[in-house]
Amino acid sequence: MKLKPLNFIIIANLLANTIIAQTDSAMIKKIYNEALTNSKSYSNLEYLSNKIGGRLSGSPQAQKAVEWTFKAMKDAGADTVFLQECMVPHWVRGKKEIGKVIASNLKTKELAICALGGSISTPAEGITAQVIEANGVEEIEKLGKEKIEGKIVFLNQPMDPTFIETFNAYGKAVKQRWGGASEAVKFGAVAVIVRSCTLTQDDNPHTGVMSYKDSLHKIPACAISTNGANWLSSALKNDKNLKFYLKLNCQTLPDEKSYNVIGEIYAEKKSNEYLVVGGHLDSWDTGNGANDDGSGVVQSIEVIRIFKALGIKPKCNIRAIAFMNEENGGRGGKKYAELAKLKNEKHIAAIESDAGSFSPRGFSSDVNPEQKSKLKSWKILFEPYGVYNFNDDGSGSDTAPLNNAGVPCIELRPDSQRYFDYHHTAIDVFENINKRELELGGAAMAALVWMIDMYGL
Amino acid sequence: MKLKPLNFIIIANLLANTIIAQTDSAMIKKIYNEALTNSKSYSNLEYLSNKIGGRLSGSPQAQKAVEWTFKAMKDAGADTVFLQECMVPHWVRGKKEIGKVIASNLKTKELAICALGGSISTPAEGITAQVIEANGVEEIEKLGKEKIEGKIVFLNQPMDPTFIETFNAYGKAVKQRWGGASEAVKFGAVAVIVRSCTLTQDDNPHTGVMSYKDSLHKIPACAISTNGANWLSSALKNDKNLKFYLKLNCQTLPDEKSYNVIGEIYAEKKSNEYLVVGGHLDSWDTGNGANDDGSGVVQSIEVIRIFKALGIKPKCNIRAIAFMNEENGGRGGKKYAELAKLKNEKHIAAIESDAGSFSPRGFSSDVNPEQKSKLKSWKILFEPYGVYNFNDDGSGSDTAPLNNAGVPCIELRPDSQRYFDYHHTAIDVFENINKRELELGGAAMAALVWMIDMYGL
Repeated sequence: MKLKPLNFIIIANLLANTIIAQTDSAMIKKIYNEALTNSKSYSNLEYLSNKIGGRLSGSPQAQKAVEWTFKAMKDAGADTVFLQECMVPHWVRGKKEIGKVIASNLKTKELAICALGGSISTPAEGITAQVIEANGVEEIEKLGKEKIEGKIVFLNQPMDPTFIETFNAYGKAVKQRWGGASEAVKFGAVAVIVRSCTLTQDDNPHTGVMSYKDSLHKIPACAISTNGANWLSSALKNDKNLKFYLKLNCQTLPDEKSYNVIGEIYAEKKSNEYLVVGGHLDSWDTGNGANDDGSGVVQSIEVIRIFKALGIKPKCNIRAIAFMNEENGGRGGKKYAELAKLKNEKHIAAIESDAGSFSPRGFSSDVNPEQKSKLKSWKILFEPYGVYNFNDDGSGSDTAPLNNAGVPCIELRPDSQRYFDYHHTAIDVFENINKRELELGGAAMAALVWMIDMYGL
Repeated sequence: MKLKPLNFIIIANLLANTIIAQTDSAMIKKIYNEALTNSKSYSNLEYLSNKIGGRLSGSPQAQKAVEWTFKAMKDAGADTVFLQECMVPHWVRGKKEIGKVIASNLKTKELAICALGGSISTPAEGITAQVIEANGVEEIEKLGKEKIEGKIVFLNQPMDPTFIETFNAYGKAVKQRWGGASEAVKFGAVAVIVRSCTLTQDDNPHTGVMSYKDSLHKIPACAISTNGANWLSSALKNDKNLKFYLKLNCQTLPDEKSYNVIGEIYAEKKSNEYLVVGGHLDSWDTGNGANDDGSGVVQSIEVIRIFKALGIKPKCNIRAIAFMNEENGGRGGKKYAELAKLKNEKHIAAIESDAGSFSPRGFSSDVNPEQKSKLKSWKILFEPYGVYNFNDDGSGSDTAPLNNAGVPCIELRPDSQRYFDYHHTAIDVFENINKRELELGGAAMAALVWMIDMYGL
């Protein structure tokens, strides 16, 4: 049979695609096998979580984490590792907070609270005031000055359990944590107590960053556990005049010098093109930051280790970045993008892992429609590994400044059901990490880096 | 524009499909919302795990579980609940087992072991013998009588970590647990010690059923933890003459009377058609059987609760079944299929949940190609809930006798990464269950029951 030119081209293309797909599929299998048999991510995370621990920006632990990460990237085989200086906020919690309900009959009950990141402290004698409950930040204005003045506003909007993707429920509820204090102070509140952002019922208060509006007076802000919030809410129904005693000991010190840690695999031929994979090195101080985001850091280091172990020589320079200060400032991410622009580095893409160490389900992205199509066309290669969802939009906060500068940004999306069980609490610890799930995340990132390096985006 | 008849039909069909899909999608959303806000599955599982506990067939706990499940199905709103009698094996573990390494220099070290289900006990004085290691059941024949006679065979084949679906790795490794004793006795072994079927490294021995060949002599069989297995394997490299002391106290008593528990929602119009959803009520005695398979039982009860809460009146009778004796005999599943045949009940489909309480990812099935296509065509409705994989073959062991009789059988497939961390151990307990993941599993089953009831299979 004689082929017409068009048919011939179609068949040749099909054939080429099949061959490419087979090669890709074989390489991705190699990457996963390497990750599931020789990964260092779990032992690295054990060190970072248990030997260094919680590492809030500006803390001695954050500095130790920088030094350790430098070494870990070297050990993983990076061709070079370097630090990128940035100034970071330095907020400290101080002594453990006290939160206490004082009933009208003067009976007291202690409830677990913790200061929100960035909050001012209470006066040395604490604050004692009546409490007014509001179902989220939107309800503050409705309550108005008459009901709020002189009181502590208790923001008790729960996360909505009917969202399947828990980050969507978080996005809705977190507004009261972020902006509650400045909204409440407009109506004369003396402090805010915020229901923890989680879908579980337990006794762990969840910290997290909050922000004051510059033009407004600052009032102390703390989180209360979901069990505590439910208890307080029912107590208020029976005793409208109960008071709350609140003592926070936090303060904001002058900015500190800190660093992004960057490990690089050189492109096979000298190149000004970069492909970034990263997580953030800082964490809240309440736990050990194993999940948020030690896991993203060790997975990024693992990408270097896998490439080196398999002898892959990339077309463009691959950078694993441990960003500093995601939690309360994002200074590391900003600094990286600023310097990338200054040095005129061309970034092909940036992938972040900051949504947990759980079993990977996909990659979300902030890319143009052609790039989204390209990513989706690779789905078939990732589905055998349970990574099937390339549809969603969204990317990490450390890569947001790159994204603003036009770089396609992608985020690893693990199963989200358990994420907010641990988020910003005392139980974000190594013991709550599953080894295989962590390894599968590193493998998924390495496989995606390999595809983008081969075919661009 | 005038439509040609063919176009008209196509458009009409498209329109009809769109309308159906919208109705379906709205109903599935309702089902998930109900499950994520009002589910009783978590509190039910707490009771079954913590108040009743491990419930091996024939045990007093299994009987308590039957009585509790009867009540729980009534409470969920079943139109009728009934028991289905079946005789079950009654194996008991007896006193805690002892496993001890005795080095040539007479130093000893205790290692955590547990008898495999169905094993005979050792003599009262225990068994002390040299140990020969084999990498799986296939290696026994290669070692031969000369190396094996009079010794304990230590079957140390690990599960292969490169399988992404851990059940596939289990399927390969479990052969040494199931058939190791009868293979080893052919060459004169006096006992077998089997590496636990898990991908973790820890100190928990994993029990599970084993089987003897009728024609062969029986020898004791136990599981050793993965840490213990690794320790023993290196000890053997340094000291080939070390001995192992083994003391098992288990025995098989006469069969006991037990029951399947069946809760039914009647079809709106009297019908001889049935749609089954189930899990198994019995569990191993080492833990509390929270994951395997308390979760499947409470999810099945939840299907009844959801249907009743939403006022859904099904076309065919819906049965939630708590099968008895999946772990060491499968008598409940056999009895159910036997009686279904006897009563000439037509079964549209049977769905089992026995692969864990984790975040659901799909449904596997043993169905004909047309039924598989139909299931796959529903994928679009389930994807928003993270349930995307309808490709795989496989269904539960309790429904296998129905499947053999031609009934399409389906199994809920949760994420499998953590399953073998807990499987058949002391840590299969309620504390290792995630509430939302458990609820999502019940919702997925209810949604699939709803679809099959509406559109058949």
